[in-house]
Amino acid sequence: MKEILSEFLGTALLLLLGNGVVAGVVLPKTKNHQSGWIVITMGWGFAVAIAAFVAGTAGPAHLNPALSIALAVKGDLAWGRALTFIVAQFSGAILGQILVYLMFKPHYDVEEDAGNILGTFSTGPAIKNPVSNLLSEILGTFVLVLTIIAIGSYDMQPGLGTLAVSVLIIGVGLSLGGTTGYAINPARDLGPRILHQLLPIKAKGSGDWSYAWIPVFGPILGGLIAVLVWSLLNT
Amino acid sequence: MKEILSEFLGTALLLLLGNGVVAGVVLPKTKNHQSGWIVITMGWGFAVAIAAFVAGTAGPAHLNPALSIALAVKGDLAWGRALTFIVAQFSGAILGQILVYLMFKPHYDVEEDAGNILGTFSTGPAIKNPVSNLLSEILGTFVLVLTIIAIGSYDMQPGLGTLAVSVLIIGVGLSLGGTTGYAINPARDLGPRILHQLLPIKAKGSGDWSYAWIPVFGPILGGLIAVLVWSLLNT
Amino acid sequence: MKEILSEFLGTALLLLLGNGVVAGVVLPKTKNHQSGWIVITMGWGFAVAIAAFVAGTAGPAHLNPALSIALAVKGDLAWGRALTFIVAQFSGAILGQILVYLMFKPHYDVEEDAGNILGTFSTGPAIKNPVSNLLSEILGTFVLVLTIIAIGSYDMQPGLGTLAVSVLIIGVGLSLGGTTGYAINPARDLGPRILHQLLPIKAKGSGDWSYAWIPVFGPILGGLIAVLVWSLLNT
Amino acid sequence: MKEILSEFLGTALLLLLGNGVVAGVVLPKTKNHQSGWIVITMGWGFAVAIAAFVAGTAGPAHLNPALSIALAVKGDLAWGRALTFIVAQFSGAILGQILVYLMFKPHYDVEEDAGNILGTFSTGPAIKNPVSNLLSEILGTFVLVLTIIAIGSYDMQPGLGTLAVSVLIIGVGLSLGGTTGYAINPARDLGPRILHQLLPIKAKGSGDWSYAWIPVFGPILGGLIAVLVWSLLNT
Repeated sequence: MKEILSEFLGTALLLLLGNGVVAGVVLPKTKNHQSGWIVITMGWGFAVAIAAFVAGTAGPAHLNPALSIALAVKGDLAWGRALTFIVAQFSGAILGQILVYLMFKPHYDVEEDAGNILGTFSTGPAIKNPVSNLLSEILGTFVLVLTIIAIGSYDMQPGLGTLAVSVLIIGVGLSLGGTTGYAINPARDLGPRILHQLLPIKAKGSGDWSYAWIPVFGPILGGLIAVLVWSLLNT
Repeated sequence: MKEILSEFLGTALLLLLGNGVVAGVVLPKTKNHQSGWIVITMGWGFAVAIAAFVAGTAGPAHLNPALSIALAVKGDLAWGRALTFIVAQFSGAILGQILVYLMFKPHYDVEEDAGNILGTFSTGPAIKNPVSNLLSEILGTFVLVLTIIAIGSYDMQPGLGTLAVSVLIIGVGLSLGGTTGYAINPARDLGPRILHQLLPIKAKGSGDWSYAWIPVFGPILGGLIAVLVWSLLNT
Repeated sequence: MKEILSEFLGTALLLLLGNGVVAGVVLPKTKNHQSGWIVITMGWGFAVAIAAFVAGTAGPAHLNPALSIALAVKGDLAWGRALTFIVAQFSGAILGQILVYLMFKPHYDVEEDAGNILGTFSTGPAIKNPVSNLLSEILGTFVLVLTIIAIGSYDMQPGLGTLAVSVLIIGVGLSLGGTTGYAINPARDLGPRILHQLLPIKAKGSGDWSYAWIPVFGPILGGLIAVLVWSLLNT
Repeated sequence: MKEILSEFLGTALLLLLGNGVVAGVVLPKTKNHQSGWIVITMGWGFAVAIAAFVAGTAGPAHLNPALSIALAVKGDLAWGRALTFIVAQFSGAILGQILVYLMFKPHYDVEEDAGNILGTFSTGPAIKNPVSNLLSEILGTFVLVLTIIAIGSYDMQPGLGTLAVSVLIIGVGLSLGGTTGYAINPARDLGPRILHQLLPIKAKGSGDWSYAWIPVFGPILGGLIAVLVWSLLNT
């Protein structure tokens, strides 16, 4: 139960901080308006570190269905537990996004661009191209899951692994985030997209649902390939 | 006594470095004028690391009344000690801010915008909205205190926890700082605001006292909620 | 065999992430278009960390012929093994670059500047001057190899050395990268340059082959000087 | 002897990398031209980390006369040794600066602003004001030396202290560097200033010798105050 709660709380923190930095950079009249890619990527990287420090006190801190599924396929996590994790992750993501919305409410109220509003909820492609976009999400999550498994295989001091994962997230964002905005996590993308649909935001537009499957299936596929490559490397 | 001195010195260092970076970015004719949000947030994050390395040699290095109060409520700190800490933190904050003023005196002398001058002392909202602003300070300090407690619960090597806290501060600033300038510390905000009132600065304007309660009560509330959530997660 | 595979996979990751950030910053219509030198240098630095975390689980993670050659001359690596490493590094670099090309395909398709396209494959000088350019690559790789040997001589906890190397790479990029784009690795430069020659990219121009020897021989020379200086310092 | 050599080599690396980043940002036609304060400060911070990793294998890696003098006054270093360290530091600084000049020669050749050229050798004030400028250098070095002593008092794992010092240097640069360019090290400033006087650079101007005493005596004073405060805190 504690583990499920920690997945829920951790993913809520992840979205609050992760989409908090996006909202700050994208929405008008904030103090960090248009402060650049380094702010976005370090914000997401440290969001993962913070969420993992908190969630890690009571559980494995996956915070990402693609990771839970990959580890279930790898045999490190029972499927039943994986399923409860995924439910907790989606619920947490929605809660975190609600907090982002409430905290940035005055800034949402003066935002007139529907694309910007959606961008603070879910990811979208820089150039729409399903094959390339899917490949981006596969590659980003492949690197993510492979490196998390690798980091886990060292005998690191408490805390150091979390800092290493934070470096990993920043690295993936800097290097592979520029094409699709790097969802690399189905809960991080689909949860807030559902919320976007429901919330009565003034200048809101479409939820771009034709794109929504890519940041769900891309990450899951990328995680599975990571498990496959890890197995090949370690047989 | 040593502990109180270390809270005093640590908070002085925190303000010297923290508002030092704000003064550098905001005031005219500095070498880092308008160098952006990443400079502000990393400056504050490393200010905390430096202050904590120094203060941590002789005490717990809270450097923040919201943290001391939260830990007193949690039962980890006697109320009498908490009170002396808070006095030391406010005094230290004022000393640190005096040093910022003296060091940047030639730049204050050529600054003509009263809002900029106040901004190098205390925080202010991007869009004035008491409910949202309070929520920002509550959420920022909630994340701060919850994660500090979580970090403290790992058995980290000396020094690593301080680096983790520095990542935490940068993360909170990047993600949740854009709406109010993230005071997340009553001493950091109110101490310098009092000093601003007293100092005879040429182009000085109002101290925006109608806002002053938010960066005091928001952080205290956020810290208390963090203790509550931590207790729920660990029962 | 595992070691060779890990050199191959690690160098593929290095190029995917390293030239991924260059492609993101240079090519048009990405989300991190023109996001600056700090993005490039941190992207490459964390690319090395990620590649080393993964490759380090099954081998020494050189990922750089200049390092393998230097350590062979130093006597830490048999020449036969060094040779297989170098083949693996070049092959991995080419695979990683293929992935960059596929992932950024829609952005390559709208890029009209041949120099920008080459810049996402290989390095080039800011001001063409063979002596200075060679010196840049020598100095960058001298610092790289000397510091890697130095870091290896401490008894660091698992993972900490990798983070230290990542700081080193960022430092070399920030400080010594502005003149030639810091190849500091023959496989990172020559592998993708060969691929650039072969790929049918629309707006592609010359591979600047008259420059290609500098990012190959500069790094090798720099690595050898590092071994020499290290020996002098430790006799 | 080994220790002196390591001070020499370490300070040479410090200047090569530290003024390497300044040259890259300031001089025309580099790839990191005008890339901002975050590049300068992280460049210097990681320069110290790299120099300390190398020099630390064979000595204490002070790399700064202000630190050696402070530790001699504190009683941790014999004055005779301190003196040889200082000679090695000045010699190393000059060697490092020569390498910067050679590496960036084509860029110096196209620079027409004498102030920019001097800025890649030595520091200068944003607003000339001896009292404030001296105070800036005192405060910067006070924080530097106090925190280095504090960091040294923890029982940190090998390598972690060096990363902590690197955070410290970045923090001091971000927060206290904007007024004078933060020499905080007499060898780093005076050594290259002497070289600037001697080198036959085309567009060279005055060495601003009337300012030269401040980045020498400010840091020494700041270091002594740090020792005093440390003693008061620890009696």
